[in-house]
Amino acid sequence: MTFFRNKTLNKSIPIPLYYQLKEILLEYIKEHHDNEEVPIPTEKEISEHFEISRPTVRQAINELVVEGYLYRKKAKGTFVSKPKIKQDFLLILDSFDNEMRKKGLIPSTRLLNIETVKSDEKVSGALNIPLGSKVIKLTRLRFANNEPIVLVVTYLPYNKCMGILSKDLEKESMYDILENDFGYRIAGASRTLESIVAGEYEAKLLDIKKGAPIQYFESIAYLIDNTPIEYSLAKYRGDRNKFTFELKRNGHY
Amino acid sequence: MTFFRNKTLNKSIPIPLYYQLKEILLEYIKEHHDNEEVPIPTEKEISEHFEISRPTVRQAINELVVEGYLYRKKAKGTFVSKPKIKQDFLLILDSFDNEMRKKGLIPSTRLLNIETVKSDEKVSGALNIPLGSKVIKLTRLRFANNEPIVLVVTYLPYNKCMGILSKDLEKESMYDILENDFGYRIAGASRTLESIVAGEYEAKLLDIKKGAPIQYFESIAYLIDNTPIEYSLAKYRGDRNKFTFELKRNGHY
Repeated sequence: MTFFRNKTLNKSIPIPLYYQLKEILLEYIKEHHDNEEVPIPTEKEISEHFEISRPTVRQAINELVVEGYLYRKKAKGTFVSKPKIKQDFLLILDSFDNEMRKKGLIPSTRLLNIETVKSDEKVSGALNIPLGSKVIKLTRLRFANNEPIVLVVTYLPYNKCMGILSKDLEKESMYDILENDFGYRIAGASRTLESIVAGEYEAKLLDIKKGAPIQYFESIAYLIDNTPIEYSLAKYRGDRNKFTFELKRNGHY
Repeated sequence: MTFFRNKTLNKSIPIPLYYQLKEILLEYIKEHHDNEEVPIPTEKEISEHFEISRPTVRQAINELVVEGYLYRKKAKGTFVSKPKIKQDFLLILDSFDNEMRKKGLIPSTRLLNIETVKSDEKVSGALNIPLGSKVIKLTRLRFANNEPIVLVVTYLPYNKCMGILSKDLEKESMYDILENDFGYRIAGASRTLESIVAGEYEAKLLDIKKGAPIQYFESIAYLIDNTPIEYSLAKYRGDRNKFTFELKRNGHY
């Protein structure tokens, strides 16, 4: 309980006590990520230290468990989860494999499905091709150190990328193939970011609970002449990923 | 059912039928955002059209309701939700008020709490000040067209920003005060992005269900001499916000 020694809750402000405790626990978690073998203090210890009820403590801990910051082991107690993987690729488009290797993690990919389909309105709009055009649809699950990290559905225009059908996408990076084998020069991407929750399918594949948070990216990558070359829908496990970037104050300096 | 006429499910690929239907419904939703008065086709109609079971249809619709894309009205049917607000401020630091006005929405702010506290490890680390320094802590709920959009907790170093205690933060923008009244020149910010779910407190304030997705930003804004001036924790309703930005392929062109 040393950590909590000089922490206090303020009973006279309009922020619920459980929420104030949650903020303190988040700080505790941040400092104890390396300490995966030792459980956090018990509900009883925390409630006595802060002089608050056990349901209040339980509510804070429960929410942190749902959010993935803590996890429970039967008869062993509550433990701090591994820290999220810090992803800094929001501004620089790089392959998943490179991103993971830069962080010292071993990437791997499972190709769940590859098929040729007709583009619907959404895919046609994204790739700027007529409705009903042939497109290649890849569904891939990607891992870091054998842990599932992201589920990606990718659409590629068939007439530009049909050669990919004969490639081993579990061994080779798609960007390497597009750039090195096919000679395309990818200039960048537009990306949209949303926070969603896992349905049954994503939960099963990503090894998380239904209802767990997911970071959802939709990206359109384009060549230097602005032709769209890739449309991807990526669902990242919220409990294992966070994304960092820098921004500038507009027009000021 | 015109929309579904040339849509089909593929029963021979390893992607669950409910999930394939979900993708089709998402496309339907995208095209029917302006059509808030007419319910989507019924479970029965959809199940007959695609020749799939009603539980399969129900699963797809249920997940879209949980994710906020659809909502149910008692005895009226299932309807398409309003589209998410497109936020493009990920790369440019601007005030919430300016961002909303640029989108034609009317911003407003409710100051939930303002107090002076001692900085803990996290706040000290972010603002680069000694542990236990005096900091101003603001808790604000921010609205667009009277709908709650984001809950923000902000820490400011007391010695640089004490003047803010006498300002009306429901009327004036914090950035305007810092820049125009105090003469600070804010250069930019570092931001971390996570996907989390709403606990009870956030759910109540943001008018969403417990467990609904939240886009969580932690930002440290700094002055042109690199001194941190603001540390903010912002929780955006996942059902009402999405964020867009452009990225470049590194070092290639």
